Amino acid sequence: MRVRLSELAATSGASIPTIKFYLREGLLPPGRTVSARQAEYDESHVERLRLVRALIDVGGLSVAAVKEVLAATQVGVDEAVGTAHAALPPGVPGPGPFARASRVVRDLGWAVDESSAAMGRLEQALAAVESVGLPLDDELLGAYASAALAVARYDVGSAAQDRAQGAVDAVTYVVLGTVLYEPVLLALRRLAQSHVYGERFSRGPGTAS
Amino acid sequence: MRVRLSELAATSGASIPTIKFYLREGLLPPGRTVSARQAEYDESHVERLRLVRALIDVGGLSVAAVKEVLAATQVGVDEAVGTAHAALPPGVPGPGPFARASRVVRDLGWAVDESSAAMGRLEQALAAVESVGLPLDDELLGAYASAALAVARYDVGSAAQDRAQGAVDAVTYVVLGTVLYEPVLLALRRLAQSHVYGERFSRGPGTAS
Repeated sequence: MRVRLSELAATSGASIPTIKFYLREGLLPPGRTVSARQAEYDESHVERLRLVRALIDVGGLSVAAVKEVLAATQVGVDEAVGTAHAALPPGVPGPGPFARASRVVRDLGWAVDESSAAMGRLEQALAAVESVGLPLDDELLGAYASAALAVARYDVGSAAQDRAQGAVDAVTYVVLGTVLYEPVLLALRRLAQSHVYGERFSRGPGTAS
Repeated sequence: MRVRLSELAATSGASIPTIKFYLREGLLPPGRTVSARQAEYDESHVERLRLVRALIDVGGLSVAAVKEVLAATQVGVDEAVGTAHAALPPGVPGPGPFARASRVVRDLGWAVDESSAAMGRLEQALAAVESVGLPLDDELLGAYASAALAVARYDVGSAAQDRAQGAVDAVTYVVLGTVLYEPVLLALRRLAQSHVYGERFSRGPGTAS
């Protein structure tokens, strides 16, 4: 596949000005120059475009964050998780120590870097919940942590499997999986709430589907 | 407690221009007029300010979305879940049908409104994951759905309990809980990933804490 900019736009669904912007920002590698005013693009550009659009539209990432996430896919798997987490929204509060979050992960027995961006986000999220007077006890944290751990075990298990099979690059899987599976989890949680609400506070046959 | 604007700012940590903006936008109810150029504020303003800041800073909501979420706390509990979900980010794709998402919730046996905003988000999230070639099979969806259902059962169970005890307004709990517990769940998922990675791909004693 060798296409011009206009065909790349038609294939990908992104507009020509958007593609030019991504090229200028380095989110998309340059095409192969075929004349002074023309370049050719290939399948790798279509794939990269899909990825960039997914990160921006579904992941809610800024252009700067997309750059960092793409850069994170270039490092080794050891660093990929931390780097990806640091690059992802929402913005992280200043450096630790994150006292409340540290207490939580220690109670859970999780071995994690306590100065990481994810710790900062947990600290901020806990503070926000408390500040508006919502419940935040050990039972609630335990329920959430169990669910998070179950999902993480699945995530990491699949990544390991994929790596073994060479089907998908493991680093790419971890980095993109973090951002792109989050909306799936949140959407499912909201739907599960509706479902459980329906079970508990039955609204009668009028609303049955 | 009866305070002037400057003291409200000092107490809440929000700046005077920010508070004036919230007053103009209706996110904060007006104070009690005490003279042509002075108004007094009370504890309810401090609480509302905390809530608005939490929704914006941690929930990542826009001012418009905060308005919708606050409006949702005024309706009955039956409608609160759907209204809150519709008001929350990220932006929802156009109206359904959401074929892929419908198949998922039917396979799960969940009774939900298939034209809801949460269904739209699930459809969008699934499409994004597929578009970049990440795995998305029944096993993965099952793992995510189980975790989401466990959290939702906890959420709704607590809301019911709180309502019975009158401790927290049930609608407020559901609406705020949806947006403010999400960052807790996501931060825990990222930390759980780090923890599980550490277990599986041990990096040796050099990185032990």
